[in-house]
Amino acid sequence: MNKHGILIILSGPSGSGKGTIVRQLLNERDDTILSISATTRAPRKGEEEGIHYYFKTKDEFKKLIKQGAFLEYAVYNGHYYGTLEEPIRRLLNEGKNVILEIEVQGAEKVMDHRSDLVSIFITIPSMGELKRRLHDRGTETKETIEMRLEIAKRELSRAFRYDYVVLNDEVPLAVERIQTIINAEEMRYFRMENYILEVVNNA
Amino acid sequence: MNKHGILIILSGPSGSGKGTIVRQLLNERDDTILSISATTRAPRKGEEEGIHYYFKTKDEFKKLIKQGAFLEYAVYNGHYYGTLEEPIRRLLNEGKNVILEIEVQGAEKVMDHRSDLVSIFITIPSMGELKRRLHDRGTETKETIEMRLEIAKRELSRAFRYDYVVLNDEVPLAVERIQTIINAEEMRYFRMENYILEVVNNA
Repeated sequence: MNKHGILIILSGPSGSGKGTIVRQLLNERDDTILSISATTRAPRKGEEEGIHYYFKTKDEFKKLIKQGAFLEYAVYNGHYYGTLEEPIRRLLNEGKNVILEIEVQGAEKVMDHRSDLVSIFITIPSMGELKRRLHDRGTETKETIEMRLEIAKRELSRAFRYDYVVLNDEVPLAVERIQTIINAEEMRYFRMENYILEVVNNA
Repeated sequence: MNKHGILIILSGPSGSGKGTIVRQLLNERDDTILSISATTRAPRKGEEEGIHYYFKTKDEFKKLIKQGAFLEYAVYNGHYYGTLEEPIRRLLNEGKNVILEIEVQGAEKVMDHRSDLVSIFITIPSMGELKRRLHDRGTETKETIEMRLEIAKRELSRAFRYDYVVLNDEVPLAVERIQTIINAEEMRYFRMENYILEVVNNA
């Protein structure tokens, strides 16, 4: 049976813990792979081409934009970052689920682009809990914490764009919830259609 | 948080084992209840009103049909059987998931009627396996087995009407798959919307 992978968008406000959740999830599922971003920023020590990023020059990146090669891209601190469609298409055809762990704005661009995906919004238990998490990092000023909370509120109000909402109260529970969603999605009729045809046709 | 229950249709060919699966599932989930059919057939020994069936006279039943009270109804051996909408609506409002375990034709009538439901089609592993199961019952002639296999094939070709397909290779696995689907469906955005609103509004 040639299985086609599922494209999974995983997004949520900064502080929702989506990075930690994805790392844990990838440890548990060898049918699921994290999408690698392309970037124009220089490789840091230990970063490898095709493993951590696809490293591109600014000219290469702009050419790819013109070719419509990106599902989404954005600029941070003068560097381009983007999600190339071609490597994702290849992995899906090989039957791998591909996870896009992406911030809320980028996620919406991908959803505008493609409908054949499963989108999951990670939520924090409460604004108070997010405030505590940001505070406990100890790296943020009172002003940046306030700003981050405002951004988180705005991002939470975009949850309606997603198929599923997953609460991250505890990381192992959140990972289990995402596992549940992926396992259920694999039983969707259109993903089981070949199976049904085989049942009918094989004695 | 006032949770609204999920209406779940569980169908599949005769011999797919949906009855056994539902009984096991109901043992495991106390948030989930089986819908009770109305019938004009006389109560058998031990059968109780409102537990096994809603018992109706033929006149009562026909009046309810005229009132549009049924999600679906059918006649077997001269007796009417049907699914009343009102008790289901009440249970859903109380936050209970309601399972309609129903044959394929009735399931489609309900799906024509309502879109706010989750539909699950139970499939057998192969036609050969169904043949073995029917044969092992020891109650069916060769002719009725052949007829049942033909009906099963026709019913399998209606699987495209359902949201999910669940393989019943082993009952505990099939039950677990349905658990997975229900748990995932409870994380759908529109079922989590109140939760998100609370997160945003509560410090």
